[in-house]
Amino acid sequence: MVDILHRVGIKTSNPEKVYEALTTIEGLAGWWTDDTKGSAEVGGVLEFRFPPGGFDMEVLEQRPSERVVWRVVDGPEEWIGTIVDWDLRQDGDYTIVLFKHQGWKEPVEFMHHCSTKWATYLMSLKSLVETGEGAPSPRDVHIAYPD
Amino acid sequence: MVDILHRVGIKTSNPEKVYEALTTIEGLAGWWTDDTKGSAEVGGVLEFRFPPGGFDMEVLEQRPSERVVWRVVDGPEEWIGTIVDWDLRQDGDYTIVLFKHQGWKEPVEFMHHCSTKWATYLMSLKSLVETGEGAPSPRDVHIAYPD
Repeated sequence: MVDILHRVGIKTSNPEKVYEALTTIEGLAGWWTDDTKGSAEVGGVLEFRFPPGGFDMEVLEQRPSERVVWRVVDGPEEWIGTIVDWDLRQDGDYTIVLFKHQGWKEPVEFMHHCSTKWATYLMSLKSLVETGEGAPSPRDVHIAYPD
Repeated sequence: MVDILHRVGIKTSNPEKVYEALTTIEGLAGWWTDDTKGSAEVGGVLEFRFPPGGFDMEVLEQRPSERVVWRVVDGPEEWIGTIVDWDLRQDGDYTIVLFKHQGWKEPVEFMHHCSTKWATYLMSLKSLVETGEGAPSPRDVHIAYPD
């Protein structure tokens, strides 16, 4: 098993703003993809769609301003069954986001791609909270082509 | 052992341009840090410096337009002995860069940070080759503060 790991520091005194961006349809649509639907409650399934396809995530856990965990229940074969784990903590003027996309079976080339792409989406989340504007799909940062 | 993985596609018909950005002092200074010194030859040591510190990398391998490998010989404790591995291949109008920073002992918080920061520097490398201008330190993209 191999994992994708990331960390960003988001300048805000309100970790609730980061938590909302991870636990509401409107928030998720503001940084990951315009086309976000489904249920953001624990036990619900979030449906994220992008021009090339998408992911369905079951919400496993939500602890206000501390933790969000999803399990991938549909999407690319390599993603199914993997876990997306968000840990938040406040450090002065910053909310520190520790991100893990865990449980990849093999470090395939697609995993390299997803690691870089996650980084750009985390920067989009940071931008959304700090400035009010993220870069969700289809206005996302391109790291290759097509991506 | 855990690894940082990334992948970018750089729009160029000349993989040599990417290779040069990884194997010359001027190229490396164009995307990673202005303060790059040392020897870029196999067996030499590259010295990368940033406001908070730096890394010394022994050049282990160079295969034109295909592969570059460095070993960290000085820097933060978690980095020493780790391997930075660049694989290049041409795919149509793009040079595909597969990046690995291998051999971390533990998935510590600093590794999460370095993973995201590497992604932004790979985007800087992409920008340098595609547009002639990267975002090396101290004009780098900030993912937290200080970073």
